[in-house]
Amino acid sequence: MNILCTSFPSRDLQQDLQEKYPDHQFHFQNHLEVTDDKLACADILITMGEDFTIDHLKQAGSLKWISCLSAGVEKLPLQAIRDRGVTLTNARGIHAIPMAEYALGMLLSHVKCFRQQFVTQQKSQWEKKYPFQELHGKTLLLLGTGAIAKKVAQLAAAFSVEVLGVNYSGHAVAGFERTFPISELLQILPQADFVISILPSTPATKQLLQEEHFQAMKNSALFMNLGRGNLFADSILLKSLQTEQIAAAVLDVFHEEPLPADHPYWQLENVTVTSHTSSYSANYMPKALGIFERNFDQFLQGKQSELENIVDLTRGY
Amino acid sequence: MNILCTSFPSRDLQQDLQEKYPDHQFHFQNHLEVTDDKLACADILITMGEDFTIDHLKQAGSLKWISCLSAGVEKLPLQAIRDRGVTLTNARGIHAIPMAEYALGMLLSHVKCFRQQFVTQQKSQWEKKYPFQELHGKTLLLLGTGAIAKKVAQLAAAFSVEVLGVNYSGHAVAGFERTFPISELLQILPQADFVISILPSTPATKQLLQEEHFQAMKNSALFMNLGRGNLFADSILLKSLQTEQIAAAVLDVFHEEPLPADHPYWQLENVTVTSHTSSYSANYMPKALGIFERNFDQFLQGKQSELENIVDLTRGY
Repeated sequence: MNILCTSFPSRDLQQDLQEKYPDHQFHFQNHLEVTDDKLACADILITMGEDFTIDHLKQAGSLKWISCLSAGVEKLPLQAIRDRGVTLTNARGIHAIPMAEYALGMLLSHVKCFRQQFVTQQKSQWEKKYPFQELHGKTLLLLGTGAIAKKVAQLAAAFSVEVLGVNYSGHAVAGFERTFPISELLQILPQADFVISILPSTPATKQLLQEEHFQAMKNSALFMNLGRGNLFADSILLKSLQTEQIAAAVLDVFHEEPLPADHPYWQLENVTVTSHTSSYSANYMPKALGIFERNFDQFLQGKQSELENIVDLTRGY
Repeated sequence: MNILCTSFPSRDLQQDLQEKYPDHQFHFQNHLEVTDDKLACADILITMGEDFTIDHLKQAGSLKWISCLSAGVEKLPLQAIRDRGVTLTNARGIHAIPMAEYALGMLLSHVKCFRQQFVTQQKSQWEKKYPFQELHGKTLLLLGTGAIAKKVAQLAAAFSVEVLGVNYSGHAVAGFERTFPISELLQILPQADFVISILPSTPATKQLLQEEHFQAMKNSALFMNLGRGNLFADSILLKSLQTEQIAAAVLDVFHEEPLPADHPYWQLENVTVTSHTSSYSANYMPKALGIFERNFDQFLQGKQSELENIVDLTRGY
């Protein structure tokens, strides 16, 4: 079996894979040309999901399975993959711990004014006057109630935070005090001190948040986006921050990544920008390849339809 | 009854107090001269504990009770207060939530490299390469197992952190997986990824940590001090940071406060300095005065020996 891997794990992890599966050929490279010979004979592609187009697919005549090591698959040609009958799996599930830790860390950083204090430290200034708050007793609204949101909910509850959730139908989810259908979003937003989106990019979530949604939030609200950048137009969020309709934003995902150096988000004092790193952890690649290995064992037994984390190519997640 | 208050709550809180107790005289001022007339006739002193010396005590002939709105009372003349038979109460108990949130926030900030990412944001730089870790699965050693440490332990456990504690006798404490006597400290330090001190300043804790203790910690360890600055000599911690015996320090308390502007802590990249703010919260003063009010009600009924949070003037906490 030929396995082409275009995400580049550490040398140790590469060696581990080859030693575990000596009868199969692993090719590791960190770019993927349409004309690449390896593509034509690859049975399996391991990718981060950002380097594979419909043109690559046309050249990949032997391809049966794409193992995406990230959770977001929206840049892959889903329709064409479906038409070709190729199986797509992703790495959902391993993001929950690092992303929930990021979310709680940023909430605590916000209420404890860490960023302002770091700036004061840079000036060697002793300063005690900041608008300190407590997480304890606040209300958090999570857009999305999947595995990552559930982990955020569980950790937030430990801090005595009231956790509300929004999902498509409003169905109840363990760990959320209350859940609401997306149709009631506007009515619930005024209750939240913090709003965190962990929604994937799907036709239903693109431009979901409009000006009225930010207007409905508290003036003291913190908005955090850990899902995908196309949830709202940047102009809408910028306006709501500049006119202090909301107090602050924490953004890890953007329409265009890398975020251009001249984008206004970078230099706004009430915006925290991170470079799509919320899921990153020293444990990420070993766990993602762990999913691949379990699936590969199944695949080798001919159980291609029983793989873990198969993406529904119609829904897109 | 004459109540002299040298910590300065908001005007609203001042008004509340005077309205609740119309038969008693409250005097609010933010400094305290030895020659102050108010001192001579004060029955009760409300203070943050940093402005009252043995000379003040000599002038305060009517004083029966000092209500300290902070937890640390080591700057008060404890021996003389004891000799005079004055009751001293403090505000222990209300620090647990804000200080535990600070501790967890700083741990998350450390493993998620927030401070480095804030610095990169200042330069408008997209950067994904940081030594990201997870809190999940790490080991935390708490020096002290009192109310604040218990709250830290509870929150840390929610992140699947193994929580160890050290106290004088090694007695078991709910919420700690294991506790050890202080005599075994050197042996336990190598197990911890994070060491947080929440010890008060007492004769037993001054200079408790010596060079050998920092040498015993992991090279990857984070050390956090939320107790008192005199737990160790600065020269010892600086050496252990500069020689990378430990990875980082988070310091909220210092030998001299304010920390002098030319102190090396300010500009070290692996030291986070905050200005003794870990317990601060918009809820602090209302809660501290709440303790005063409950105690004042008891005091007015002649139950001076039954007040909440009476400080043991021999032990010093």
